[in-house]
Amino acid sequence: MPHDAVEVISAKRDRQELSDSQIDWVVDAYTRGAVADEQMSALAMAILLNGMSPREIGRWTAAMIASGERMDFSSLSRPTADKHSTGGVGDKITLPLAPLVAACGVAVPQLSGRGLGHTGGTLDKLESIPGWRAALSNGEMLAQLESVGAVVCAAGDGLAPADKKLYALRDVTGTVPAIPLIASSIMSKKIAEGTGALVLDVKVGSGAFMETVEDAHELATTMVALGQDAGVHTVALLTDMSTPLGLTAGNAVEVQESLDVLAGGGPADVVELTLALAREMLAGAGRDDVDPADKLVDGSAMDVWRQMISAQGGDPSARLPTARETHDVPAPASGTLTRLDALAVGLAAWRLGAGRARKEDAVQAGAGVVWHARPGDPVTEGQPLFTLHTDEPARFERALAALEGGYDVGAAAAYAPTPLVIERID
Amino acid sequence: MPHDAVEVISAKRDRQELSDSQIDWVVDAYTRGAVADEQMSALAMAILLNGMSPREIGRWTAAMIASGERMDFSSLSRPTADKHSTGGVGDKITLPLAPLVAACGVAVPQLSGRGLGHTGGTLDKLESIPGWRAALSNGEMLAQLESVGAVVCAAGDGLAPADKKLYALRDVTGTVPAIPLIASSIMSKKIAEGTGALVLDVKVGSGAFMETVEDAHELATTMVALGQDAGVHTVALLTDMSTPLGLTAGNAVEVQESLDVLAGGGPADVVELTLALAREMLAGAGRDDVDPADKLVDGSAMDVWRQMISAQGGDPSARLPTARETHDVPAPASGTLTRLDALAVGLAAWRLGAGRARKEDAVQAGAGVVWHARPGDPVTEGQPLFTLHTDEPARFERALAALEGGYDVGAAAAYAPTPLVIERID
Repeated sequence: MPHDAVEVISAKRDRQELSDSQIDWVVDAYTRGAVADEQMSALAMAILLNGMSPREIGRWTAAMIASGERMDFSSLSRPTADKHSTGGVGDKITLPLAPLVAACGVAVPQLSGRGLGHTGGTLDKLESIPGWRAALSNGEMLAQLESVGAVVCAAGDGLAPADKKLYALRDVTGTVPAIPLIASSIMSKKIAEGTGALVLDVKVGSGAFMETVEDAHELATTMVALGQDAGVHTVALLTDMSTPLGLTAGNAVEVQESLDVLAGGGPADVVELTLALAREMLAGAGRDDVDPADKLVDGSAMDVWRQMISAQGGDPSARLPTARETHDVPAPASGTLTRLDALAVGLAAWRLGAGRARKEDAVQAGAGVVWHARPGDPVTEGQPLFTLHTDEPARFERALAALEGGYDVGAAAAYAPTPLVIERID
Repeated sequence: MPHDAVEVISAKRDRQELSDSQIDWVVDAYTRGAVADEQMSALAMAILLNGMSPREIGRWTAAMIASGERMDFSSLSRPTADKHSTGGVGDKITLPLAPLVAACGVAVPQLSGRGLGHTGGTLDKLESIPGWRAALSNGEMLAQLESVGAVVCAAGDGLAPADKKLYALRDVTGTVPAIPLIASSIMSKKIAEGTGALVLDVKVGSGAFMETVEDAHELATTMVALGQDAGVHTVALLTDMSTPLGLTAGNAVEVQESLDVLAGGGPADVVELTLALAREMLAGAGRDDVDPADKLVDGSAMDVWRQMISAQGGDPSARLPTARETHDVPAPASGTLTRLDALAVGLAAWRLGAGRARKEDAVQAGAGVVWHARPGDPVTEGQPLFTLHTDEPARFERALAALEGGYDVGAAAAYAPTPLVIERID
């Protein structure tokens, strides 16, 4: 069906629904280079401002899947389940979750990304483990899924290349926060990846991409519908990201916290969210007979972790890197930590060197923020409230500026606990 | 002031007003290539959908003017006045108007363009005159304004280069119909050109860019405000473009009709609009003591035309080119021509070869449509209603298809005359 770019852009600009044929054409033509970047960015802005119907989003997602290869895990002896988080501060959940679910008998094919801006990336965290490598061929991935049961690796170039090209374009054209494009970007990769079940952790709050429950709900509902329509058992949890997860934000510091969880300890919120997501993944894969909490206690999740790291060249016994310099921030008063803002902590960790501003930047393995109290905890004036880690002490000043105004110490009565899991959507 | 493209795009995306500093930066950076086409097209779509305040439009226009040179006509012995039409079908008004106003003692520095799509371009029409050339240096233009009093030529590359680049981008990204961008594009060139007075002929109707009076009114009001704020005496007339002007649409056929007007004849609507615009230009330049109608009768406007054509290398006595083939379309019934649609006629002329689909296409000098009755005129079944002109007879079929449904013959009572000048805005 012949179309042209101005026709498709003008239709969406004028609030019309795009036809299946227009969507198939424009996604394919953009992938081939027949639709130019300046045309696709104008279309992306029109989609952002004028929206898309569920039918359009479904077709757009299918067109992005059709731009590349699809993986097939049907030869595995176990069912598969995957998790996707929309990104938050201190969100190391994939690290304990993948081996935990594998220890329960469900294979986890986790394609992850690197961080950009104030939210960390799972691959950056794992790369702080000496020797570990993110790049696997499809064959290596399949073999590890069978032998170990869990893989966390980089998505190959063959999966949804249209999304890869479009995501890079949206990043430089102010068109990232378009729910139809976010949903189709995430779901095209997850559906093409071939997982049988999928649990979406949709973050909401200051440190998340979606700052309101309404936006997060709309994104979650859109993604669940896309997954179900494609035959993937999909559930979403809306979870709080006004406060960072756990007690660490960075790379190696988050790996260490994940090891604490796998050893049966760790911060209560990280354990709670890991178990909640594990139970959803197991239920989606038809294995809700297993209680994942047992696998943290009996050490079997830690065993899978060690196998998973070794299989990708990492040394699970190696000492994790630490930053050359640290700086303590004392509590300004005695009382209760009544607020800790996720965005402030995320920006501080980023500025210390844990994250990157541009795709081509390197990250520091040892950089990050460790905090010594969580909201609701008592603190004493002068005790270390935060410890900042970096290889470059010149970075402390900008990190301290990011933290400023990001926390409050006050009366215990001023602390109002908020639920970690806000809503479940299926 | 340091800004970045994503910040500026995001602000407009989120319905914020852009600051002066953001506007200055983004227009300059785009001209220099530091803001990429895909970033500017996303911004253009956000401007199209979210609008701009009068302050933003004024600043955007000023930034486009500042991207290039400004001309200065203050050394001339006469005041200056210019006219701009937003484009219509059969709109040859510039051809008789420029020499007519010059004959009244006001210099006319008319920078014109070539046609794209179904509306013709003044330069294309004049280029059907053997020898005539559109390209003049600034010095040649100034000298001709002093000696002849009228110049119609192509805008040089030095004037508002930001607009030139942005216009080409909007053309391929579906972002042409944005009133802030249309207004600033037109006015940046007219203000940089340095005219003392300006009359805007804002067309409204099927053959025009603005199809509703509301849109045309908004565009006219925006442009008049921009002109006045820049110290240019600016007036706009909203004029009808549901019916094409005169009896011809094409290139040489429109030059011939213009010569009829300069000789004291020609179709009544062309004469009416030429005189209405001439009176506004003269009033704007402080010369409302002169009646331009006299200059058509006494031959002095024709004298200036001949000097103007000669000065740019053209032979005003040369025979105008004619098309190799013609085809008559007979009236389908006897009665009154009750409707003649400007868009249908414009598309037919375009398809006959009078216009171009892409900037790099050539046009046929002799191609076009001539009609033998105007709405309100009686017609007899079988009489030629249209004569189509082209060098390539294969084009007749598509031109006939464009005309189909574009006119009605019926009872005299079914004809409702509409005013040519709909509104005056100053």
